[in-house]
Amino acid sequence: MIVISQRQGRYTVILPSQPVITGYAAVVGKKEGEGPLADEFDKIFEDTTMGKDSWEKAESAMHREAIIRAVSSAGISFGDVDMIFAGDLLNQCIGTSFGIRDMGIPFAGLYGACSTMALSMAMAGMLTDNGVTRTAIASTSSHFCSAEKQFRMPLEYGGQCPPSAQRTATAAGAAVIRDSGAGVKISAAIIGRIQDLGITDSSNMGAAMAPAACSTIIDFLRDTGTAPDDYDMILTGDLGAVGSELLLEMMEKQENTDISRVHADCGLMLYDLDRQDVNSGASGCGCSACVVCSHILRRINSGELNKVLFVGTGALLSAVSTLQGSSIPAVAHGVLLTR
Amino acid sequence: MIVISQRQGRYTVILPSQPVITGYAAVVGKKEGEGPLADEFDKIFEDTTMGKDSWEKAESAMHREAIIRAVSSAGISFGDVDMIFAGDLLNQCIGTSFGIRDMGIPFAGLYGACSTMALSMAMAGMLTDNGVTRTAIASTSSHFCSAEKQFRMPLEYGGQCPPSAQRTATAAGAAVIRDSGAGVKISAAIIGRIQDLGITDSSNMGAAMAPAACSTIIDFLRDTGTAPDDYDMILTGDLGAVGSELLLEMMEKQENTDISRVHADCGLMLYDLDRQDVNSGASGCGCSACVVCSHILRRINSGELNKVLFVGTGALLSAVSTLQGSSIPAVAHGVLLTR
Repeated sequence: MIVISQRQGRYTVILPSQPVITGYAAVVGKKEGEGPLADEFDKIFEDTTMGKDSWEKAESAMHREAIIRAVSSAGISFGDVDMIFAGDLLNQCIGTSFGIRDMGIPFAGLYGACSTMALSMAMAGMLTDNGVTRTAIASTSSHFCSAEKQFRMPLEYGGQCPPSAQRTATAAGAAVIRDSGAGVKISAAIIGRIQDLGITDSSNMGAAMAPAACSTIIDFLRDTGTAPDDYDMILTGDLGAVGSELLLEMMEKQENTDISRVHADCGLMLYDLDRQDVNSGASGCGCSACVVCSHILRRINSGELNKVLFVGTGALLSAVSTLQGSSIPAVAHGVLLTR
Repeated sequence: MIVISQRQGRYTVILPSQPVITGYAAVVGKKEGEGPLADEFDKIFEDTTMGKDSWEKAESAMHREAIIRAVSSAGISFGDVDMIFAGDLLNQCIGTSFGIRDMGIPFAGLYGACSTMALSMAMAGMLTDNGVTRTAIASTSSHFCSAEKQFRMPLEYGGQCPPSAQRTATAAGAAVIRDSGAGVKISAAIIGRIQDLGITDSSNMGAAMAPAACSTIIDFLRDTGTAPDDYDMILTGDLGAVGSELLLEMMEKQENTDISRVHADCGLMLYDLDRQDVNSGASGCGCSACVVCSHILRRINSGELNKVLFVGTGALLSAVSTLQGSSIPAVAHGVLLTR
């Protein structure tokens, strides 16, 4: 029997063949390796230059390392991969393109800011469900030092952050998604719509992204006729402390939906906020990528979690748009991960 | 009967349902409106600020205008669109995100440098072929002034270019791709593999991109068992004069394949190279977008062309990677456009 993707409701795409994540890996920097998830990662780079002579090259090396380890854990080789869906935060996504340039894998570059891991998993899931790809990779990266240099100030300035700011994770995650095999399944996907409520403070991305997360979660619940309690976890990408609180409040007050029992946020899981001086938590493409491609997939594989709605959130600003005083558009994409 | 995408050979995806381009539009700046294709465009902005107070905002306004006109020409509204696949050259793709932020359309952001129009058409084609989307938009933009400011020097410097350089087109193009209707069909798609032969001169992107075009064209011909003469046109995105000559030479000498009779390049069609002082021709996401979404689709619709292999080419560099002396990875994606 041939099964193909089915739309359910207006925005949700059900993936009847349930593409499988047969391998995954997460690699992180020193600070991330000192956090609560330290034992979960495949590699911790104690030297966050990764032996390279620029932060951008370090990010590429880290992104590459995550892919190599994911491919290895899936027991395949680059030649088996039909497409890679990947991106990062750097201008023109060079963290990705320079990291993968010699792999010989057809490359569909994505940009979704910090939502990119969810976007890449959604794309890989949808195209694998339909047989366009039999084996695909979804991957992303971010690096604290390349991001600070590009979006804010060179590290040497010693700039200070307000409490609402989040720390860009030095991390990369990669997942191998196949049409058959053993592992966590991608059962559905949703591509989000841009939300922009007029936030202009680029040190408060949680507030800019919360409305996008709210919109995508509500669309998904409405489309599928489900309630928060039908999930073991509704996992946002990197709203951090400020954004998570806003999300719960928006869901409750605007949508009359309480997700507090099942909500978790990768940005609140990567660091110990009391101990690690990271203000409102973690952010960056690599944040949700490394948390999902370690801790979360492992807990689903072990049966501790059965049904996780992962909603990656991204703030679609640039350093230029911020300097021009523009508000911050945000988007959130989701995938349903099931045992 | 349910038909789903079929891989043919290693890299090519055949789209049996043949998604249809039911509407399209191209809008351009003043210089592009003085070129040989002037009569083909839907709108020529005589003022390339588009009335905005920054070049980035001008690009967003232009991108938005192309989408609005494409949607209108397809006789639909934003609410009918299931997904938009779009991107541009600006850091974090703000030309796109700020242009579409209030449209309420699920947004999958893409980055493929100047190959983005082919990538977005490939993605929209593949997902529409499989029923994930019934109606999708593919769109991209570029703006000479925002690109010069970001990649090279502010215009006020009056920097000079070598003859191998290309001029970034001030242009945007958008196509509406649906599961049924009248119009040009997308019959196949191919996602390219990164090629990097070590070119480090960012004023010679044609040379950096030619190997990627060569690889994707050869993969497509091999996969489909076809020869250049089976096509009315093999259209590259923006190799310009230098890159086009290199492509023909590589095809001939390395691959023993002569495409000279059917080869055309959007970068050589947009301007009059003798008259308009544009060195090696046009480049930028908007170049192939505006040429395909006017002249090319119109000629296929009229029956003048029946089978066009459009291969968009992109140089995956950034200003930072160039300053760090890195070579330029390039990629080329393709769609087969048929009557």
